[in-house]
Amino acid sequence: MEKLIRVHMDTLTVTEETAESYKGLGGRALTSHIVGAEVPPLCHALGRNNKLIFAPGLLAGTNAANSGRISAGAKSPLTGGIKESNAGGTAGHKLGNLTIAALVIEGTPSEDTLYKLIITSKGAEILPANDLAGLGNYDTVAQLTKDYGDRVSFITIGQAGEMLLSAASIAVTDMENRPTRHCGRGGLGAVMGSKGLKAVIVDDAGVQRPPMVDQEGFKKAAQKFAKALLEHPVTSEGLPTYGTNVLTNVINESGALPTRNFSQGQFEGASETSGETQHDIILKRGGKIKHPCLPGCVIQCSRIYNDKEGKYLTKGPEYETVWAHGAHCGINDLDAIAQMDRLEDDYGLDTIETGVTIGVAMEAGLLPFGDAKGAIELVKEIGKGSVLGRVLGNGALITGRVYGVTRVPVVKGQALPAYDPRAIQGIGVTYATSTMGADHTAGYTTATNILGCGGKVDPLKPEGQVELSRNLQIATAAIDSTGLCLFTAFCILDKPEAFEAVYEMLNARYGLQLTGDDVTALGKTILRVERDFNQAAGFSAADDRLPEFFTQEKVAPHQAVFMVSDDELDTLFNF
Amino acid sequence: MEKLIRVHMDTLTVTEETAESYKGLGGRALTSHIVGAEVPPLCHALGRNNKLIFAPGLLAGTNAANSGRISAGAKSPLTGGIKESNAGGTAGHKLGNLTIAALVIEGTPSEDTLYKLIITSKGAEILPANDLAGLGNYDTVAQLTKDYGDRVSFITIGQAGEMLLSAASIAVTDMENRPTRHCGRGGLGAVMGSKGLKAVIVDDAGVQRPPMVDQEGFKKAAQKFAKALLEHPVTSEGLPTYGTNVLTNVINESGALPTRNFSQGQFEGASETSGETQHDIILKRGGKIKHPCLPGCVIQCSRIYNDKEGKYLTKGPEYETVWAHGAHCGINDLDAIAQMDRLEDDYGLDTIETGVTIGVAMEAGLLPFGDAKGAIELVKEIGKGSVLGRVLGNGALITGRVYGVTRVPVVKGQALPAYDPRAIQGIGVTYATSTMGADHTAGYTTATNILGCGGKVDPLKPEGQVELSRNLQIATAAIDSTGLCLFTAFCILDKPEAFEAVYEMLNARYGLQLTGDDVTALGKTILRVERDFNQAAGFSAADDRLPEFFTQEKVAPHQAVFMVSDDELDTLFNF
Repeated sequence: MEKLIRVHMDTLTVTEETAESYKGLGGRALTSHIVGAEVPPLCHALGRNNKLIFAPGLLAGTNAANSGRISAGAKSPLTGGIKESNAGGTAGHKLGNLTIAALVIEGTPSEDTLYKLIITSKGAEILPANDLAGLGNYDTVAQLTKDYGDRVSFITIGQAGEMLLSAASIAVTDMENRPTRHCGRGGLGAVMGSKGLKAVIVDDAGVQRPPMVDQEGFKKAAQKFAKALLEHPVTSEGLPTYGTNVLTNVINESGALPTRNFSQGQFEGASETSGETQHDIILKRGGKIKHPCLPGCVIQCSRIYNDKEGKYLTKGPEYETVWAHGAHCGINDLDAIAQMDRLEDDYGLDTIETGVTIGVAMEAGLLPFGDAKGAIELVKEIGKGSVLGRVLGNGALITGRVYGVTRVPVVKGQALPAYDPRAIQGIGVTYATSTMGADHTAGYTTATNILGCGGKVDPLKPEGQVELSRNLQIATAAIDSTGLCLFTAFCILDKPEAFEAVYEMLNARYGLQLTGDDVTALGKTILRVERDFNQAAGFSAADDRLPEFFTQEKVAPHQAVFMVSDDELDTLFNF
Repeated sequence: MEKLIRVHMDTLTVTEETAESYKGLGGRALTSHIVGAEVPPLCHALGRNNKLIFAPGLLAGTNAANSGRISAGAKSPLTGGIKESNAGGTAGHKLGNLTIAALVIEGTPSEDTLYKLIITSKGAEILPANDLAGLGNYDTVAQLTKDYGDRVSFITIGQAGEMLLSAASIAVTDMENRPTRHCGRGGLGAVMGSKGLKAVIVDDAGVQRPPMVDQEGFKKAAQKFAKALLEHPVTSEGLPTYGTNVLTNVINESGALPTRNFSQGQFEGASETSGETQHDIILKRGGKIKHPCLPGCVIQCSRIYNDKEGKYLTKGPEYETVWAHGAHCGINDLDAIAQMDRLEDDYGLDTIETGVTIGVAMEAGLLPFGDAKGAIELVKEIGKGSVLGRVLGNGALITGRVYGVTRVPVVKGQALPAYDPRAIQGIGVTYATSTMGADHTAGYTTATNILGCGGKVDPLKPEGQVELSRNLQIATAAIDSTGLCLFTAFCILDKPEAFEAVYEMLNARYGLQLTGDDVTALGKTILRVERDFNQAAGFSAADDRLPEFFTQEKVAPHQAVFMVSDDELDTLFNF
């Protein structure tokens, strides 16, 4: 973790510097610190003053289980605030092997030309890439694979990013070199598009793993960590067997599965779209369950989803994707959902934002709830770049504005994920207060509210939710800096030795003396940096609120409204 | 000014109360106080918790020269903040005659039905109006005139308001009963649409002017006021002869005429679109110059613009309308501009927001700058309600978002009017800090910066601009509460006796002992109420800023950038 590579898209030059001023930071900690220090909070997110940062986590290049996620950060064109979004795939570890702490993409090219960035052990180079213009992520990767082989990682944008749509994602290739792992949220694909950067090729050929200060200590800690993961029921059973979509039945049962644009809390088609049903379909068609999305994964919640002919269609759609295109749209057809997942991975779109937007379009009357065919056509409009596609590709808030919809589930301009905050009050606190806009991963209280990890807090009562969300937001910020998969948190929350192992691995890797308190302190610092940026960008207490209807419209089956008071929400950052 | 009429669109009932709690307030003072006291700042602007208020000024129903403007107020769907927008026409005086201080339109109807509200001396009544659905303002008024005659006033929305577009205006009929006077800014037409209210019919048949405490005193003060107006060169010569469009040449000369989406400060086609040229066209075609937009107007800056066949086309497009569709779009064709003015009055659209949006669409590459025919077609798209039309009808910010444009001239989501803030730094302060979003009328420093009314402040230097804008914003808020046309301010700024006459008229009408200080205090109070609402709605210092490009891109001919510092801007409300 020594080098910071600056890629100047205005002059088409690359410079290298030591990462001294950002020492000890990786992943989200690093992207957020660079954005906080170097990006003017009031700049246009698609203008030359924004910067796009890629940073692998602190454990990148090691064999720590479930490490190697890569963070992307910038000012978000979707929220107008700071954004960090991380993905699995192979690029994180490769950047770690190359001892690159971060790529900082700066400026915008003066001409309307597309470029690609090639990173090898010899350095980084910008080359024209107009041959890739207009290609989806799958075709882009296929083309790049011809040129660079399949032992490299690709970080790419599809049509959505090129069109500067604010639901655009950044794709990272997976273990099979498919563009299925996405920095999805916040429109970072549009920032990459605004920089004229179609693809980053990361080639670590000829390099070894990065240096390790205490090889033996690391080995011990890493074993302890992996063992804990393999013993916890969520990470060793639920997730491997049924994938993240194991949650559909669980959340539906708890009355928190937002249905037809958050008008109900249970979906009559839940079982048709559940992880159990997905599991059976996948096995029947010769797909794959228990599939890793990055090297060294022991949880293996990813899967391969084949079409009816047994041909690869997409990775197994995640729970939030299934929900956004399923219950939220009143659609109970897993194949239709998988098709949309594939299209969105190809165009380079956040599946949560896009699915929620389709539900808002349904509420606006563009098509009826439950119309799976119509929903697929809407997604295709985005790929085509029609006017309607551009509207939808800019997300739920913009679509709601264009059609005058009053029930638009967004916070800070970002669509709410798959958990109704009236039936899981804790996640409502996270949605409202997260520096990222509505984001379940920012402080996943569902773990405690519903799954009973890390204690118990009644999901239907306002009491204790702010504290729960606060602690999880702090912990998450720290985990997002290590490159560890967030799902390790289920285990970390319950098993003290798993938490110990995390900072022991960091200590061994870097020769540090971190304690648990230091990890917590890092999380707090990250949140403060992010919140400071957001405040300078214009966010105030009013932005830490759920949309009006969550406090006014009761949702079945609990007839619940969101009850955590504004005053309580405003204490979240009191730490 | 005694009654407050509440119109409950949820129950389709009307209640009447004394305006006791809002005593002494009229026009903007009254709309803003009601919004501040009764509308939850975080409600959805198109939802049931927003309220739409119509309030004539304090001098409504009197024969004070240039009085009788009507204010509309609500939470704005365009800015998300408080909004007051006022118009001429005949409705203000008629409401004054009926001693109605305000109409407060509350709630939303449960069914998708349109209604009209009839107000007479006998009371107010809500009736179905589905026969008016989908009609433009001109057809709506024609239909209503058949039913209610031509001695009443109509307040209506066109297709844009029905479609809930956030550039939708509210039309008020003029002296010839044409829907040419608009509460244009901030999307209040969409709020009216969300209430299911297509039209308000104001019939003052059988009532006298409202009571006057000191008849003789009023007469004297009113005469003093009219005399001052008739002596000031701006209100007695420039405006009557050439209309507001007298400014095109003046502002172009000063290098402050924003051209091709604010990329230049002078337009080579200025003279073809000037007030002088318009004057000649109007006379040649048998139109009318020196035309009043409301009863008792002595300035008469309105005009009647006929087409090439000598047939009525529209009112003389105002300077800001000419600019928005002219220089801003690189269009030098007054007839094309007049056609768009007519279409927008008919659909019920803010001409500033719409024209600026077309320029942003040109910057996005939808059509080339200067394409008058293409621009007209874009306006027609809005009327049709096509997807593109819905995008454009939601204004410059949304259009910029949908197309990924980085040079989008808006503050608080509202399009900048016809004065480049780099060449008139004072107006930049008003744009940045006004509670209304970018709005030249909120503190028209051009009067002093360029026209030399009320002193002199160098338009190109940052010094003194905040003080100038502050004083004018305070004065304007007060004037907007009297129902006086803002153009009286040119005279009030220069002639102490005109200012005296204003509070003398109020004293005589109501039996008060107001002084000049009281008027200033009222202005300050209004601004505070508005700013408090905006802060609770989420605005912070970051929202009191011009878009980034004004401080970074130099504009010809002065090669100027906006130079008033953020710190100075933040002192505007120190009063």
